[in-house]
Amino acid sequence: METGKKLNGIIDCDVHPHPKSYQVIQSYMSEPWKSRFNAQTGLRGMYDNPIHVNRLDSVTPDGGYPCSDPEFTRKQLLDEYGINYAILLPRAFVSRYSNPDFAAAIAAAFNDWLAADWLDNNNDDGRYKGSITVAPQNPQAAAREIERWAGHPHFVQVMMDSGSTAPYGQQQFHPIYEACEKHGLPIAFHPGTEGVGINQSHVAGYPTTYMEWHTCLPLSAQAHLVSFITEGVFEKFPRLKLVMVEGGSAWLPSLLWRLDSEWKPLREEVPWVKKRPSEYIKEHVRLTSQPIESPDDPKHLLMNFEMMDAKNILMFSTDYPHWDFDSPTRSFPKMPEDLKRRIFFENAKELYNLE
Amino acid sequence: METGKKLNGIIDCDVHPHPKSYQVIQSYMSEPWKSRFNAQTGLRGMYDNPIHVNRLDSVTPDGGYPCSDPEFTRKQLLDEYGINYAILLPRAFVSRYSNPDFAAAIAAAFNDWLAADWLDNNNDDGRYKGSITVAPQNPQAAAREIERWAGHPHFVQVMMDSGSTAPYGQQQFHPIYEACEKHGLPIAFHPGTEGVGINQSHVAGYPTTYMEWHTCLPLSAQAHLVSFITEGVFEKFPRLKLVMVEGGSAWLPSLLWRLDSEWKPLREEVPWVKKRPSEYIKEHVRLTSQPIESPDDPKHLLMNFEMMDAKNILMFSTDYPHWDFDSPTRSFPKMPEDLKRRIFFENAKELYNLE
Repeated sequence: METGKKLNGIIDCDVHPHPKSYQVIQSYMSEPWKSRFNAQTGLRGMYDNPIHVNRLDSVTPDGGYPCSDPEFTRKQLLDEYGINYAILLPRAFVSRYSNPDFAAAIAAAFNDWLAADWLDNNNDDGRYKGSITVAPQNPQAAAREIERWAGHPHFVQVMMDSGSTAPYGQQQFHPIYEACEKHGLPIAFHPGTEGVGINQSHVAGYPTTYMEWHTCLPLSAQAHLVSFITEGVFEKFPRLKLVMVEGGSAWLPSLLWRLDSEWKPLREEVPWVKKRPSEYIKEHVRLTSQPIESPDDPKHLLMNFEMMDAKNILMFSTDYPHWDFDSPTRSFPKMPEDLKRRIFFENAKELYNLE
Repeated sequence: METGKKLNGIIDCDVHPHPKSYQVIQSYMSEPWKSRFNAQTGLRGMYDNPIHVNRLDSVTPDGGYPCSDPEFTRKQLLDEYGINYAILLPRAFVSRYSNPDFAAAIAAAFNDWLAADWLDNNNDDGRYKGSITVAPQNPQAAAREIERWAGHPHFVQVMMDSGSTAPYGQQQFHPIYEACEKHGLPIAFHPGTEGVGINQSHVAGYPTTYMEWHTCLPLSAQAHLVSFITEGVFEKFPRLKLVMVEGGSAWLPSLLWRLDSEWKPLREEVPWVKKRPSEYIKEHVRLTSQPIESPDDPKHLLMNFEMMDAKNILMFSTDYPHWDFDSPTRSFPKMPEDLKRRIFFENAKELYNLE
């Protein structure tokens, strides 16, 4: 058995609760959406993982979906590793729907379910913190959905799929960020619907295999991050925070260098970008760690942490219950205690105002 | 004046000759293409650089296009820096055309012009080496074009825009790589038509500004490289070499790590990928250096060189005459002589069989 007892604290920023069945979600919806929602086949369709998308041992004792039972997850994840808080990111995959009202209805149903089954009950110690799912193709409804949950004691951020119709810095999405900023909620991007439904692919054309699709997910994260910078989102919303979930992190130094180099000669084109892009990113952006990169030489990862200032920007996550789960005790190389404490606890504690 | 005399040799892998006017290119074309080609407005249309795309001092003495005069370029670039060989990559932007025969006709005209004006004349000392432009949307014509020039003493590689309709590892492009391999010519990808004409964008949706478009070009390079790996191109063409031109390089370590991590659990899905992706890349792929990244702390760039094995994979380039030209003497931090020699000379000498 692995144990997290050596650590002073852990905040896990990437945990995926699952409804016991899609009928549960369906029960929160109203017509006409309710009868259109296919509760048998679920939500996916393209780029399915050819192996399995969840840890095999995360099926619940009564045979239910992985991460669909708060008690079992508490035992298998929180207690097993001594995790203080787990940030819950249900996967509703709403950005893929062509009908923005349908997408908003599904998002709202997911939020109702998460509040009822994970945040308001089964949460006596307050260790589960939730993400408000919103539909990016319906920014006005998304802003209303944020208003609906703002002030809830256990919703700590807003989340969108990074699969999208356009780079997320663009102006059509700004009502969402305005609502986030107003209520002090970070916005989080999580991959999963790139090239699916109405969404553009994250590469030129469509990838062939899941391995190609999944390997390229960091490109999606980077494109949205560049868009946030070049569109001046952090000047318009100076208190907004952005969390890039599950998109890799080792690419960050190269992107910071390139952004700063491009901005210097081209800043006339983007006069609303008033300082070096790396300064905005250090102030406003945090990255979750899973899947942490594993170079053959572990010291290369520590060099990379130094280059990206991981001490202030990287937040630990497991991606429970997914197949490529990162263990708090086994996935990272040996590193200085203060750096470990920042990555495993302090950075998320500060961002989400925990404890 | 800067001088390259301290170096034992320099091979510049990214130099852009320009016809004196587009009428020159037009003169090599036949009907019906000739009369359709707009020789007045040139080839571009979207994502134009808002400042200037060429070094201001590279306009020729008689007021002609930058890099349109082999003698002036020899003086301003080769002699100025003591560059032994310059790999010429004209910018025909052919991948953007919807009509594949039109695209092939323009590519062929560019090749005729490059051979006539730069490679067969004005090249007594053989310092100019050429790239065969081909149209990726017409793989059969591209293969014929490669056959047409194979054996020419000064064409040393085949080039395509990385702006494309699909990831370049896909099977429809394989006739091009078969011809490259047959004649021992590396294939080179150069950015420049992403999201233009028929090409997909390299981000989800279309970028807004040139800065956003240009900052994201490394994403295009990475997507094509991943496609080459996951489609098994180097197993099918075991002697093929690939050159990623002008797409950045500091991202390479993070991509190698991610590719290897993905391949291990997912290799059942891609049984034609028989070894770790990083092994294919080390053997088959080379990156050109410009624009070299400039971290605030130069030692971070040297760490990055170590992580990517720059000693064996990185090849120097200036991108002459473009605006973000890298100087052989000023753009790199101080580094060990043997590393410098590999990057500035040996890696390209070995790839292109020079001297």
